[in-house]
Amino acid sequence: MKKVLHHFISCLVLLLVTSYGFAQNRIVVFQSDFGLKDGAVSAMKGVASGVSPDLKLYDLTHEIPAYNIWEAAYRLEQTVPYWPAGTVFVSVVDPGVGTSRKSVVLKTKSGHFIVTPDNGTLTLVAKSLGIAEVREIDEAVNRRKDSQKSYTFHGRDVYAYTGARLAAGTIGFEQVGQVLPSQVVDIPYQAAVLEGGRLKGNISILDVQYGNVWTNITADLVNQLALKYGDVLHVNFFHNGKKVYETNAPYSQTFGAVKVGQPLSYLNSLMQLSFALNQGNFAATHHIGSGSEWSVEVTVSHK
Amino acid sequence: MKKVLHHFISCLVLLLVTSYGFAQNRIVVFQSDFGLKDGAVSAMKGVASGVSPDLKLYDLTHEIPAYNIWEAAYRLEQTVPYWPAGTVFVSVVDPGVGTSRKSVVLKTKSGHFIVTPDNGTLTLVAKSLGIAEVREIDEAVNRRKDSQKSYTFHGRDVYAYTGARLAAGTIGFEQVGQVLPSQVVDIPYQAAVLEGGRLKGNISILDVQYGNVWTNITADLVNQLALKYGDVLHVNFFHNGKKVYETNAPYSQTFGAVKVGQPLSYLNSLMQLSFALNQGNFAATHHIGSGSEWSVEVTVSHK
Amino acid sequence: MKKVLHHFISCLVLLLVTSYGFAQNRIVVFQSDFGLKDGAVSAMKGVASGVSPDLKLYDLTHEIPAYNIWEAAYRLEQTVPYWPAGTVFVSVVDPGVGTSRKSVVLKTKSGHFIVTPDNGTLTLVAKSLGIAEVREIDEAVNRRKDSQKSYTFHGRDVYAYTGARLAAGTIGFEQVGQVLPSQVVDIPYQAAVLEGGRLKGNISILDVQYGNVWTNITADLVNQLALKYGDVLHVNFFHNGKKVYETNAPYSQTFGAVKVGQPLSYLNSLMQLSFALNQGNFAATHHIGSGSEWSVEVTVSHK
Repeated sequence: MKKVLHHFISCLVLLLVTSYGFAQNRIVVFQSDFGLKDGAVSAMKGVASGVSPDLKLYDLTHEIPAYNIWEAAYRLEQTVPYWPAGTVFVSVVDPGVGTSRKSVVLKTKSGHFIVTPDNGTLTLVAKSLGIAEVREIDEAVNRRKDSQKSYTFHGRDVYAYTGARLAAGTIGFEQVGQVLPSQVVDIPYQAAVLEGGRLKGNISILDVQYGNVWTNITADLVNQLALKYGDVLHVNFFHNGKKVYETNAPYSQTFGAVKVGQPLSYLNSLMQLSFALNQGNFAATHHIGSGSEWSVEVTVSHK
Repeated sequence: MKKVLHHFISCLVLLLVTSYGFAQNRIVVFQSDFGLKDGAVSAMKGVASGVSPDLKLYDLTHEIPAYNIWEAAYRLEQTVPYWPAGTVFVSVVDPGVGTSRKSVVLKTKSGHFIVTPDNGTLTLVAKSLGIAEVREIDEAVNRRKDSQKSYTFHGRDVYAYTGARLAAGTIGFEQVGQVLPSQVVDIPYQAAVLEGGRLKGNISILDVQYGNVWTNITADLVNQLALKYGDVLHVNFFHNGKKVYETNAPYSQTFGAVKVGQPLSYLNSLMQLSFALNQGNFAATHHIGSGSEWSVEVTVSHK
Repeated sequence: MKKVLHHFISCLVLLLVTSYGFAQNRIVVFQSDFGLKDGAVSAMKGVASGVSPDLKLYDLTHEIPAYNIWEAAYRLEQTVPYWPAGTVFVSVVDPGVGTSRKSVVLKTKSGHFIVTPDNGTLTLVAKSLGIAEVREIDEAVNRRKDSQKSYTFHGRDVYAYTGARLAAGTIGFEQVGQVLPSQVVDIPYQAAVLEGGRLKGNISILDVQYGNVWTNITADLVNQLALKYGDVLHVNFFHNGKKVYETNAPYSQTFGAVKVGQPLSYLNSLMQLSFALNQGNFAATHHIGSGSEWSVEVTVSHK
């Protein structure tokens, strides 16, 4: 009798384990530059569902501008931390498909997994969440069956497939492939620093709808300058190290603190130093872009 | 022995309950004006998945025009009734973030839950589905841990978090916060009425792709006028009570019943009185908009 | 005692069956020309969730150009094979709503189900995956309750509802409705053939972002011509059988093999013969479209 009961307990445990997996939470989040007008994203989710129909498949965004690795990196850094540990991200912005870039899975110190070509996509998230371990995807085993026969779509045949297997617990992290040195391909960019009273930083992204210019310079750094509203920031904008524009932008609490059409500086919703024109488009007006090759230098004239 | 068996029954019941929750169906449906180009929607779903990875997370739309509370209200009214009772909606169109607008959860008489700033978003759904109870979100308990430290994104830190906890059964409805009076912030608009042979109504929405003008005047009301196809409707269009256009629009079964470029009136797919130009764009041609501040008055000349 | 234990086994089996269904995988994938700006897609998923909250609801695309049956057919053919057998697709591109087109479910030989108006949407998938059986939806039973009362939205009230019931195992395939002859409404188009040294084929789709022209002529056929890079293809483009353009397009491995602005022919990522202008937009420049009414004829001048 006891044996039978024991068997039932095993059944129940098995059932629970089957339903919930072990370490993984069975969630995969996809990002790409594919857009949503054709079936590419759906094909990736189909392959993942074929690995296990019980996975939960979500999206970060598929509207990354074509081949824009920097923006892929930025969106990951902004979003990954809000998903629970164990979530697997599949990011496919891959201008170098067919070249020697490695296909990897990064496990962050926060317990997130990111499946991606190692082409700079991991630049920011490796820094902010930390590298626990990087493994190279062994395509001899981690590739959709029969996918070599016709053309290969790596996002579907390797990345979605491997991400799904990892999320479903079909493979453990160590079965992804060999361990690589704990580093990723890094896109160089201007870190946010305060040097001799001068703030330097990268233009991380444009607030596209309004044309505001967002930097990676945090409120912490700004506060070291003991700024008061009304203090004038003198700002130089650089593209690949070459100055392309300079202006004076009063540090303001509201856009209305300056006249219509005039520049201002402010802390955006992420508490980072940003630049705008009151009721205008700073980026378009002054031909300012964003990404690793864009930077600013800021000095202050106190009021 | 019986005790042991009893224990198993409890286990099974627990398992079922764990899997399916009590009253809730574990579904959360998100709506916002965020668009899908950045990670904002994904961060909300990440927070919800952190509450319980087994939630089912869907979307209404994230293409509400920026800050357009009326359209948020309209899309909710059109869509909520088609989801099963127990579904939790999280709607974040929030121009007043940081002001004194309340954060609430409406339970409708139909058994749906809507988590939203109480800024007019509930205007239409409160009327059509009925108010069972309104509770104010107590942010002391219903707020993502550590989210006060840096900047606050209410959609993610309060609304998605609370909606997920409610859908997962982590909290019951009564644990959302204190009960409020059974009313919501109401955007005033012209109700559909027939007064002395004159139809009055609101311009609820534009059929954007074609520029057709849709009102809230139902077929029931129209039928009280005993209209026949070919009868001419004389229509006045008002913005904030001021007449901006008037025209004669024959009541038609098909667009082809009038000449190309000519106006007509018809019942749209929701069986509501609407106006169009045959092969033209009524709204753009005559500068007609939609929303609470737009209305029409209609009289009939029988053929 | 044994009886009691037997009862437990039944419970466990029931639980497993309840969780996982029988033949179905509980996945529904939606496609339409509705876009994502209003609540139409969400209403379909709401109805499906009402059938069973445990379904997994995904999308193919909702950006099919309005009423473009050919593109709906093309996206299905490209995407369906990557989803596991048992997946139910609901495709709603339905210019003939209200006419006599039949509402059907196709079961393919690959074990996929496609719920759709039989208006040509199945043209390509029926050919490539094969017809196992076609059944007509019996709307007397397979229609959302009370949906006859007001206006009918077939995508929501019939297609989403029936697809969900099939995916959830609420009905078996035979309960969809009566069996029809094993054929579907076919949009005629130029099959890919090699006749007397002349390649003929259909222009399946445009690579919209770049304006490249993709045909259904596979690498297998192209290889029968023993092409070498540099060989010049003479190409005639037809719309409804009428020649609209002709050009010489060198067969190239890379776009840079011809001068900027010059035409070339190449194998695209699906290994199909395609045409492009180096750094230009072939389709826009030469007014070439895609769909069933577009075709090409190709002859070769060997180098």
